[in-house]
Amino acid sequence: MDSDYGIPRELSDLQKLRSLYKPELPPCLQGTTVRVELGDTTASADQSDAHTLSRSFPHTYGQPLAHFLRATAKVPDAQIINEHPTIRVGLVFCGRQSPGGHNVIWGLHDALKIHNPSSILLGFLGGSEGLFAQKTLEITDDILATYKNQGGYDLLGRTKDQIRTTEQVNAAMTACKDLKLDGLVIIGGVTSNTDAAQLAETFAEAKCPTKVVGVPVTLNGDLKNQFVETDVGYDTICKVNSQLISNVCTDALSAEKYYYFIRLMGRKASHVALECTLQSHPNMVIIGEEVAASKLTLFALTQQICDAVQARAEQDKYHGVMLLPEGLIESIPEVYALLQEIHGLLRSGISVENISSQLSPWASALFEFLPPFIRKQLLLQPESDDSAQLSQIETEKLLAHLVEAEMNKRSKEGTYKGKKFNAICHFFGYQARGSLPSKFDCDYAYVLGHICYHILAAGLNGYMATVTNLKHHVNKWRCGAAPITAMMTVKRYGRGPGASSIGKPAVNPSTVDLKGKAYQLLRQNAAKFLMDDLYRNPGPLQFDGPGADAKAVTLCVEDQDYMGRIKELQQYLDKVRTIVKPGCSQDVLKAALSAMSSLTAILSLISSPTNSGL
Amino acid sequence: MDSDYGIPRELSDLQKLRSLYKPELPPCLQGTTVRVELGDTTASADQSDAHTLSRSFPHTYGQPLAHFLRATAKVPDAQIINEHPTIRVGLVFCGRQSPGGHNVIWGLHDALKIHNPSSILLGFLGGSEGLFAQKTLEITDDILATYKNQGGYDLLGRTKDQIRTTEQVNAAMTACKDLKLDGLVIIGGVTSNTDAAQLAETFAEAKCPTKVVGVPVTLNGDLKNQFVETDVGYDTICKVNSQLISNVCTDALSAEKYYYFIRLMGRKASHVALECTLQSHPNMVIIGEEVAASKLTLFALTQQICDAVQARAEQDKYHGVMLLPEGLIESIPEVYALLQEIHGLLRSGISVENISSQLSPWASALFEFLPPFIRKQLLLQPESDDSAQLSQIETEKLLAHLVEAEMNKRSKEGTYKGKKFNAICHFFGYQARGSLPSKFDCDYAYVLGHICYHILAAGLNGYMATVTNLKHHVNKWRCGAAPITAMMTVKRYGRGPGASSIGKPAVNPSTVDLKGKAYQLLRQNAAKFLMDDLYRNPGPLQFDGPGADAKAVTLCVEDQDYMGRIKELQQYLDKVRTIVKPGCSQDVLKAALSAMSSLTAILSLISSPTNSGL
Repeated sequence: MDSDYGIPRELSDLQKLRSLYKPELPPCLQGTTVRVELGDTTASADQSDAHTLSRSFPHTYGQPLAHFLRATAKVPDAQIINEHPTIRVGLVFCGRQSPGGHNVIWGLHDALKIHNPSSILLGFLGGSEGLFAQKTLEITDDILATYKNQGGYDLLGRTKDQIRTTEQVNAAMTACKDLKLDGLVIIGGVTSNTDAAQLAETFAEAKCPTKVVGVPVTLNGDLKNQFVETDVGYDTICKVNSQLISNVCTDALSAEKYYYFIRLMGRKASHVALECTLQSHPNMVIIGEEVAASKLTLFALTQQICDAVQARAEQDKYHGVMLLPEGLIESIPEVYALLQEIHGLLRSGISVENISSQLSPWASALFEFLPPFIRKQLLLQPESDDSAQLSQIETEKLLAHLVEAEMNKRSKEGTYKGKKFNAICHFFGYQARGSLPSKFDCDYAYVLGHICYHILAAGLNGYMATVTNLKHHVNKWRCGAAPITAMMTVKRYGRGPGASSIGKPAVNPSTVDLKGKAYQLLRQNAAKFLMDDLYRNPGPLQFDGPGADAKAVTLCVEDQDYMGRIKELQQYLDKVRTIVKPGCSQDVLKAALSAMSSLTAILSLISSPTNSGL
Repeated sequence: MDSDYGIPRELSDLQKLRSLYKPELPPCLQGTTVRVELGDTTASADQSDAHTLSRSFPHTYGQPLAHFLRATAKVPDAQIINEHPTIRVGLVFCGRQSPGGHNVIWGLHDALKIHNPSSILLGFLGGSEGLFAQKTLEITDDILATYKNQGGYDLLGRTKDQIRTTEQVNAAMTACKDLKLDGLVIIGGVTSNTDAAQLAETFAEAKCPTKVVGVPVTLNGDLKNQFVETDVGYDTICKVNSQLISNVCTDALSAEKYYYFIRLMGRKASHVALECTLQSHPNMVIIGEEVAASKLTLFALTQQICDAVQARAEQDKYHGVMLLPEGLIESIPEVYALLQEIHGLLRSGISVENISSQLSPWASALFEFLPPFIRKQLLLQPESDDSAQLSQIETEKLLAHLVEAEMNKRSKEGTYKGKKFNAICHFFGYQARGSLPSKFDCDYAYVLGHICYHILAAGLNGYMATVTNLKHHVNKWRCGAAPITAMMTVKRYGRGPGASSIGKPAVNPSTVDLKGKAYQLLRQNAAKFLMDDLYRNPGPLQFDGPGADAKAVTLCVEDQDYMGRIKELQQYLDKVRTIVKPGCSQDVLKAALSAMSSLTAILSLISSPTNSGL
């Protein structure tokens, strides 16, 4: 170790106080005896992907769900893991830092040491590059002391997001073998967990004994599916951003002369923007998924905002706050197409200076229409997942620019008679993702860390640690693990009819569900938010007092608990089996048969591939 | 009243909780009986200004200090105000919103009603424009309910910062007469309090019975002098900014690839930047006062930052956080001179397009050297106080741009061998000034509101409400009032030798004292901050638990308590008088005479005009 990682550091009073906070564990993880119940084997959400998935992941697709239960739980098939040999576990931060990441390390370390004090936890220094180079730091209580409940990834650092090329995968496998790791825990978002699944499959294939575990940690909140209700960091990011958005709303209302255009970090999906809107009630939010679904052009979007500005001016209001997700730029159809052309040209080696002359006529026309600063940003190299460098593209400035131009035009034409439109632009992201994590994120991450241990103790490979029922108190949380392959989907590329080249299976970012309860809540209130300035300030993140236990609005309104329902269904099936045993009456059997036949007919119908796109 | 001001609004849980918080009062203001002690008459800090001041303010210069004491305090000359007739008071927000402003209203309202429930408090709607137009809202308990301890100025709103032209002053006087106001309370910073002093003088001259009171409320923290230790809002702004700066520091340390350049709101002086540095320990801060004092050019400043980047690269560190005050741009000597030329041309009616061709050769050379976005910003119309539009000039981008160019140059020349320099720029201001106020600001503002009442009850005109000993618990706070004219200085314009046209007296923004304890503390730690990444995260503003009572570092290290010392001196003088009464021994008299003669000789020497610039 040649770095200053893990060195104790000066903490502020509040940091010290936070470092002494000890998250609660759900009942099932308390003590040293945990019961593991392996449920049914898993399938992919979209049945049409099953074939591709089972071919790509022959060793790790179709594994069962795992539930972790109290030692005293009366579940027939669940086994208690009694043996806890010394194990060696490696842990790596992948991708963007997200508040709470440190607590996964802490939880895993605690669980390891409780079950066997000789077990070893090695942190890889500097992210995946540290993994490849085998640079490690042995995690101890002393080292953890000033990192408990603290933000950032600075205990270990992070670098590249990828463990994907053959070279990288081999380097990772060599590291695991050389360091004699029984487990490798990968902390990250959709891309990193896709890599984790791939690594698990490769390790299984190569008979490398290291088990790979993924942990859902990403501020974007876009690793979300049947098994994962939310990600570590999302709660904090939304709270810090909401604090700032609300402050800006108060500012707007006090000065009454500015429109604030605020772009929020969060990658392609608009989860952060949606949650912040529900917390702060700004005048308007542009949800990328909505723009993509209704194919709103840049022109239409500008008109929509201008109409809002004009409607407010008619009520003598010359201020307002507009939110937009950083992914918006890719959701606007014609800009997306332009970006595709640019990235294609960049990939084929065309230099930045020559791109504009090689664009198709329509793309070139759009490109020339855009202001110079945006043109420069659109020409940036795409990221490792082929998306544009969203954090670098100032969409908020582009929209403010277009809206200002349009308002001036309306003024000149006499259709707008109000005062001059003034915009101030902001990008909120970097200032939130290093925050002290909220209590929720501290708890969630710490519990996930514990689960990582139990996954390894159960000998599972290619799983993600999961906690469900999160909207309730910790003592109601359900702990489990799901095969990462069960969260994967296969993207079909190509837009023309017939063009359907099959993509690689991946844990894809979930988008905002336009039929979901959270989005519906927004739609119900959108008109009032726009006109009535119902600004609401959730205030700065609190660690003490009643505000400290607030949870994300989207988490609370979405009625998820998929894992709970899976268990409930299991109980029904068991009950049917108990009632309809050989020897039961003919009538009982008939009733059961009739009901089951109708149930299976319905289920077959609604889960057939033609309906799966619903 | 034709607006939606004062309408109850939806509060978040934390806002509700805050709205129930009731600030404590210092012992002297508890109950309904307050003793007022009028101290010695005041002078200006710089004796050479005395003549100009007494000529400009014949009615309000040289008034005595006022101390508010417990009814039981044993002070011979202090009088108890027993009569509390019904009075009518108007209140106006002037200038930029600052967290805590609402609590001044609340404190004043409470004090008015405690002493006479029939007294009336009128808030002017929409700042000084509402004052001129006599648009008022009668403040009631119901109206205050959802604004107690809340941020922003949205209960009343605000517009223009000025009450200065004859027309404006007359409109204000007419409003006070028409509304039969006994008092007018002006809430604002240096400019607004200068206006308040002028208004008080004009009212006295015109025998208008309305007494004018100023309250120090400005996030810039630059209304600071012998009588005023800090301003309402400064504490909150520094805490919110420090939270964000610290988050960015954590982010920098996690990703290890970016330099963050953060510009902070705070007008000409660097108080906010200094306090935030002492709270968060970023790698570097550029104090405008330091740049001005050592006449650092843009080139020298760039070199200094590049040397720091290079020194860090030699330790394999490619990240960092740099703070700069928004006023920096005016502190750089050659840019200041350029701005003076531009503003001169703008004032003489030259249009923006033609300015660059009319600049002097050297100014033109500098102008052309600057990147286009900065050129555009420098051409903006100056503000009402003749300074540049500091919030609109992206000095952080200018410096990042220059540093990047220089690092690339050094790379090419082979003098820098490290990785590429990457900068990300931020401006923190709007997102902080609408914040929920800190407990300190809530308390301070509420107490100041109470003091406003006692100033009016004592019949004082042209005073500012003051609280000193603020670094201690509320029960040790000293309440008083000082004539605003005693805080005024006269700026001498003209830079050449002999050129000394006399400016108008004004409450000028105080600059960071380069010999003060706070700045010294920074200097002692600057080298460590730069190289060792001693980042410290004060965390988000807390309202509960131990973190909630933290006070600004600058407030705590600066040993002010001027008002306390003035009282202490008074006690010594009284004691001497008691001991050396006619009849005392010749020896006692001789000793007293000798000591007094030497004391007065020393004081005359150090307070002579030639030394006043020390």
